[in-house]
Amino acid sequence: MSEDVAITTLPSGLTVLTERMERVETVSFGAYIGAGTRHETAAENGVAHFLEHMAFKGTANRSAVDIAEAIENVGGHINAYTSREQTAYYVKLLKEDLGLGVDIIGDILCHSSFDSDELERERGVILQEIGQANDTPDDIVFDHFQSAAYPSQPMGRPVLGTEQIIRGMKRDALPGFMRQHYTPENMVVAACGNLQHDQVVELVQQHFADLPKSELEQPMPADYTGGEFREVRALDQAHIVLGFSAPGYGEPDYYPSMLLSTLLGGGMSSRLFQEIREKRGLVYSIYSFTAPAADGGLFGIYAGTGESEAAELMPVTLEELAKVQQHVTEAELNRARAQLKAGLLMSLESTGSRCEQVARQWQIFGRIIPAAETVAKIEAVTEADIRAVAAKIFRTRPTLATLGPISQVPKLSNIIDRLAA
Amino acid sequence: MSEDVAITTLPSGLTVLTERMERVETVSFGAYIGAGTRHETAAENGVAHFLEHMAFKGTANRSAVDIAEAIENVGGHINAYTSREQTAYYVKLLKEDLGLGVDIIGDILCHSSFDSDELERERGVILQEIGQANDTPDDIVFDHFQSAAYPSQPMGRPVLGTEQIIRGMKRDALPGFMRQHYTPENMVVAACGNLQHDQVVELVQQHFADLPKSELEQPMPADYTGGEFREVRALDQAHIVLGFSAPGYGEPDYYPSMLLSTLLGGGMSSRLFQEIREKRGLVYSIYSFTAPAADGGLFGIYAGTGESEAAELMPVTLEELAKVQQHVTEAELNRARAQLKAGLLMSLESTGSRCEQVARQWQIFGRIIPAAETVAKIEAVTEADIRAVAAKIFRTRPTLATLGPISQVPKLSNIIDRLAA
Repeated sequence: MSEDVAITTLPSGLTVLTERMERVETVSFGAYIGAGTRHETAAENGVAHFLEHMAFKGTANRSAVDIAEAIENVGGHINAYTSREQTAYYVKLLKEDLGLGVDIIGDILCHSSFDSDELERERGVILQEIGQANDTPDDIVFDHFQSAAYPSQPMGRPVLGTEQIIRGMKRDALPGFMRQHYTPENMVVAACGNLQHDQVVELVQQHFADLPKSELEQPMPADYTGGEFREVRALDQAHIVLGFSAPGYGEPDYYPSMLLSTLLGGGMSSRLFQEIREKRGLVYSIYSFTAPAADGGLFGIYAGTGESEAAELMPVTLEELAKVQQHVTEAELNRARAQLKAGLLMSLESTGSRCEQVARQWQIFGRIIPAAETVAKIEAVTEADIRAVAAKIFRTRPTLATLGPISQVPKLSNIIDRLAA
Repeated sequence: MSEDVAITTLPSGLTVLTERMERVETVSFGAYIGAGTRHETAAENGVAHFLEHMAFKGTANRSAVDIAEAIENVGGHINAYTSREQTAYYVKLLKEDLGLGVDIIGDILCHSSFDSDELERERGVILQEIGQANDTPDDIVFDHFQSAAYPSQPMGRPVLGTEQIIRGMKRDALPGFMRQHYTPENMVVAACGNLQHDQVVELVQQHFADLPKSELEQPMPADYTGGEFREVRALDQAHIVLGFSAPGYGEPDYYPSMLLSTLLGGGMSSRLFQEIREKRGLVYSIYSFTAPAADGGLFGIYAGTGESEAAELMPVTLEELAKVQQHVTEAELNRARAQLKAGLLMSLESTGSRCEQVARQWQIFGRIIPAAETVAKIEAVTEADIRAVAAKIFRTRPTLATLGPISQVPKLSNIIDRLAA
């Protein structure tokens, strides 16, 4: 369990977290940077993600192909992702190859070369990635949802940027973003698996010595307004995301909102799944989700349905949002608690998700949360807490994003009227 | 490692495989049936998958909501999938809840009620699932690929069936398919995690006593012919799958074909990734894959690219197929070996994938393959073996499926000419 995390903060300010799991043959290692899309300017939207791609394209010590070959020579995996608040670089390796993994992640974060030819080719790759996302309706609809929820501000922009911005992105923007954000204080490294803490600390000291120094700037606070996005597209399904403003990490309502999402749309026994899929057969996919951030967050519901089925889907969904504010049973609360607790235990069986969790806790709370503390918080939530958080969330101005044959999807104004009724 | 699998074949003919992993808190349990889409008639295409959905919709002992609630009350997950050769039902639970999981999987396989009202609603759900697949270009293109590779035969049909067949599917087809295929001899159950073999055997004896008896029929042999599918669709990317006939499980060329796929398109250091994405920036996604079956299989390459980039992509890909028949380096062979071996070790850390692996080995080979034996087979493959299997595979008549803005994607006849040149 997470009680066994060892923590060392180096003189540079970089924190090293490790969690030893003796019985596995592998180790996961990652560097987690507290910067992402919401730290970008409008003119440079997509730079955090572009930088994440370019980190793999060569350093002072290694070419792009050297990096790929070194990791795959030992059967390892290296990957990265960019989100709105975070960029992560991580490897999974057999335990004896940990040193190589720390070396390479350190190298790409400290000595990236941003070769111009490589950059031009990578621009093409990212344009293809944008095309692929746009071709996947249940992917791109979430970008439109985010943008409608947080219009004209960093928190609402797409992680990939836009075709136009990526075509015009200047080379210097990438090392510029890196120098400003990839500092020891704004980064945490985590390793989980069959390892020794002291060995990891020593490796990190050796390979992360050249991180840049810079003053941290706070991103613009997220200002949820809600709003609407509609795109008619010739598809079989109308893809619909309906959302609201919700608690961020660390807010008192955070655990009630997680339990609300679980019992409303978190599994096969949830209300939306039962009512909309099982009783009415209107969808294949329907679920609710929370997207917490440092300051506030989103609560959302996704559904994919046929053109004519959409007419029935929305009123039934809105009725469920009303019902859950009136009545929650002890049985469904207990079930939602069991789902969250078991999910927590199951996630601890993967070295990669353990790294993620401890790094995220460190970045948000400045400490590692013992599993027992999380369980106690889940246990403490009452039926009344859930009704109250539902009333609070579903009273915020909604966000609606919909894409496909959407003639039967009600307008946002209509949804607002029904919610107020 | 897989050496620790305990095996009991019950008097009914049902085999129980277990693998004990003491240090985890969870257990995975699944029932794997040797029947899928290729065991269907043309008129009932989709019945295996429809049946898999209906199994969750109620038994003589439990309603659909009872099943969902029972599993989620203890924070467990229950799911299922249908492929061309197999149908699987599985749960993941905390270790103390194993008995419940075996009870429910046994109940849905032995006592499913196929209620008519539930069936009508589930028909709607499956029609939505078909719509969702059709809206996802890098999903549906693989159905068209399969159909072009194996035209007019069970092996080429889509797992979901077609809208028309699903609309007309009669209730009796479902229990009919179940009675014929869900027999003890055509099923294996596997459990991995923190468990005792004897306890699992006892639970299975108790809950799988009422499986049907039936003579097994062999499916029609797969007859690969290759062929072409083209669909112009207004998308950002042309989605392309190019494939060939390849070895099935257990054929002597199977491991050489796996190593070929790994070094040609299996990771960041692979030839296709390096040449097409890293050197030319033509794609975001490109990879090769093998799809082995009991009798023969497929080797394929997927790429998603822009309309104009497609013109450059195909000749470069075909050149790589020619080059690998001429020359393979020791370094890339060693790297591919390391990737397969490490992937094998990493997969053993998940209770779910262990269940999958042992069940599949039992169904295909009638025994559990020790990891050391698999490693030895990977080690034994030489550069010459890879060149030889490449020459054999890429000499078969190709299959081409392409969807999107495909004006610049060469025709199959053109590809055949280039491959012969």
